[in-house]
Parts: sequence; structure tokens; C-alpha cells
Amino acid sequence: MNKGQLLYEGKAKRLYETENPEVLFVEYKDSATAFNGEKKANIAGKGNLNNQITTLIFEKLQANGIESHFVKRLSDNEQLVRKVEIIPIEVVTRNIAAGSLAKRLGFEEGMALKRPIVEFYYKDDTLGDPLITTEHIDVLGIATLAEVEELYNAALHVNEVLSPIFAAVGVTLIDFKLEFGRDNNGNVLLADEISPDTCRLWDTKTNQKLDKDVFRRDLGSITEVYEIILQKLGGI
Amino acid sequence: MNKGQLLYEGKAKRLYETENPEVLFVEYKDSATAFNGEKKANIAGKGNLNNQITTLIFEKLQANGIESHFVKRLSDNEQLVRKVEIIPIEVVTRNIAAGSLAKRLGFEEGMALKRPIVEFYYKDDTLGDPLITTEHIDVLGIATLAEVEELYNAALHVNEVLSPIFAAVGVTLIDFKLEFGRDNNGNVLLADEISPDTCRLWDTKTNQKLDKDVFRRDLGSITEVYEIILQKLGGI
Repeated sequence: MNKGQLLYEGKAKRLYETENPEVLFVEYKDSATAFNGEKKANIAGKGNLNNQITTLIFEKLQANGIESHFVKRLSDNEQLVRKVEIIPIEVVTRNIAAGSLAKRLGFEEGMALKRPIVEFYYKDDTLGDPLITTEHIDVLGIATLAEVEELYNAALHVNEVLSPIFAAVGVTLIDFKLEFGRDNNGNVLLADEISPDTCRLWDTKTNQKLDKDVFRRDLGSITEVYEIILQKLGGI
Repeated sequence: MNKGQLLYEGKAKRLYETENPEVLFVEYKDSATAFNGEKKANIAGKGNLNNQITTLIFEKLQANGIESHFVKRLSDNEQLVRKVEIIPIEVVTRNIAAGSLAKRLGFEEGMALKRPIVEFYYKDDTLGDPLITTEHIDVLGIATLAEVEELYNAALHVNEVLSPIFAAVGVTLIDFKLEFGRDNNGNVLLADEISPDTCRLWDTKTNQKLDKDVFRRDLGSITEVYEIILQKLGGI
């Protein structure tokens, strides 16, 4: 597979065409952004880490019966994925209060929720990715109600598979964001990436943050903690 | 019924005990507030208008089979209501995009929604009354899932009754906020007020705003437009 034309450049990745119209070439960038792009930095090695971590997680999900757009890793910072049309909804699953949920509801960060919850955010930078409800999705017309149910169930399924995988290596899956797309047949498929950029991961014993909050809150070296996650997941 | 001890003073009303432990005395204040209390003013006559409008609306709802805490109007600015414990959820029903919905979803104000939608906001001034989902309500523990369903259905029922009542007098019910409480037996009852303070009401022909947006956005005399609503609803 060769890199064809650049299709899209996002904050963390570049997507290129390949010879196969159903397959895209993904290049992970060495950039970190937060707060809707207001804070950004170039961080050498971050692209490699996220490419490798995402690969391991998509492989583990596949081994547990959860398909995604992931096809294969090509190099340190490149992978092939199936082409999908991204649904503009960020699907956030939370086990423990942190970040915007703690702020919204007045919860202490680290407070366990009595049950996992799933939230939807409208993926729109100009609107600041606002929280939306199923009825907002319906009037926006960005997904059908059947698709919303699929996203909801898929998010909880991923949580059921990933939580024990992280727990087994001493890491608590606090919350995580998923994105989904539609393939050529209109089937909904898990897409984007799953990495410390898109999950909150805390050391279960020490509560050390092993995720992008290290960058958001200036808590130290982001590549050092991403390395820890990569190693714990069985990467080199 | 005599006014007993002051139980609670809110932004727009004072609640007093009466000789009957299940009945409260409500006094409507001449105050207008907006933006979580940041903007406020004393507006002579506003309390009388809202007391009278709320009375007419609760009477019309009752005539259509929808009970509320309303017992009877006592004077220009006073009414009796059944005592309930307010559920800290603002239930907002919307027919047409305006206000925070237009901002959240990037809709033009005045755009008709393809269906009425119901939103829940957490009634908490320190948190800024944030939008919440059913699952947030569940983890907050502020209402049961059965109660949430009751609030949702009641909001749509009120919308079905009120929309044609306003339409018949040339007013479009854009959106409105309801509050509910639990009586001594734990039954959910429509409470608070329904007035131009809590509804968006537009003249159907001219789109003139006949509600609190006149105060929020400095569009003219709030009592003049509240008078129009009172007259259209059959008040003096």
C-alpha cells in the first residue's frame, strides 16, 4: 500500500488515500492539542506511541469480538484503516467522575459512579463540542435513533472489554472517547483511535495520571506516561 | 388562609407557611433576573402579571386534565399552592430553536424543530444550571428513572395542551421551562410557575417577543408585553 493523496489533516493524524478506495493510510502526528486546540505543542515520539497503543487496543478489541476500522500497523507512526464516513458524535463512556463531568455535576474527581454512563458530544469545533442528547442528535439529523442505540451499546461493550484489560495491568479506565463511522454499506464501525489521548487512565495504586491530562494540566512528560501504558499493554 | 412564616425566598417569589401544613402561600415579587442572577431589576407590576398569568395557565391545564400544585389565586400578587418538595431539574420543552439550544447546536433562532424535544437542566446556581442527561440524573440520584419518564411525558402533555391555546390567540409557544415537586405521598406534581418568565412566546405574525427575552436582551418594556399575554389569555 502506498500513500496517495492527502485526504484530511486533523489535530493528531493525517489521512491519505491508497490504491484501494476502501482503505486509508493513517499517519500519526507528533502533536498534542487540548482545550479545543487552544493549547498545542509538538512532542517528539507521541505519534509513534499513539499509533502503537491504538494498534494494541484495536487488536485486543478484535480478539474480544469488537470490530473496528483498524486493518494493520505499517510502521512506527503509520497504520491502514478501512475508509468510513465519520459520524460527528464523540461517544464518551465514564466509570469514574473526572474532567468535564466532575465540573458539570459538581462531583469530586475520582468519585466512582454507581454505574458507567455514556454521553454524546457534537463533534463541532466552532461550537466547542457541546454535550448533546439523543433528541438533539435527532433534530440535528446527524445519526438515526437506531444508530444512536448502536453507538450506546458499542460504547458499553468496549468498556466491558477494556476495563478488565487495563485493571489486569494496574490501570483504571476512568473514561474514554470513541468515534464511529459508516462504511460504504452504511454499517456503523468503531473508528478513530483509542489511546491515552482519548482515554483517562490512572495508576490504580497511586492515582498517577497516565493520559493526556498530563499535557492539559502540565503534570510532567506526556511521552513518559504514554510509554508506561504502551509497556503495560505488552508493547515494546 | 393567613401568611405564616417565610419558608423560602427565590428570585421571583416568596413562599410562606399557612395554617394548613400541606398548603403554601406564594407572593410574586416585582423582580426580574437573568443570566443566573447576573442581571436583575425591580419592575413594578411584574409580580401581579406573573401571578395572574400563571393562575390562568394552571386553570387551563387543569381544565384539560393536567393537575398542578396550584390551589387558588388570593390577590393581585398572591396565590395558594400545595406544598411539594421541588425536584432540582428544570424540564425544558422546545418547539422552535431559540436561546441556549440555538447556541448549542448552531441553529438559527426561529427555526422550527422537526419534533418537540425535552431537555433536563440541573437546577443548581453554583453550577450554572447545566444541561444533564437521564444518566446524569441517575448518578446524581436526584430523581428515579421512573420519575424522569414522568417528567418527560408530563412536559410533552403540557406542550400539547398549551401550544394550541397560545396559537388560538396568535402566539407561538417557542419553548418553556417546567418544574415539578413531590407531594407528601411522593407523587410527582407540576409546580412553580408558567409565565412569560418561564416561556418563550412570540407573536405568530410579527415574531415580536412577548417574554423575558425582552428583559434579557433590552428589547423594551417587559410589563407591556406581559400585559399583552395576560389580555390574550383572557385576563383583565
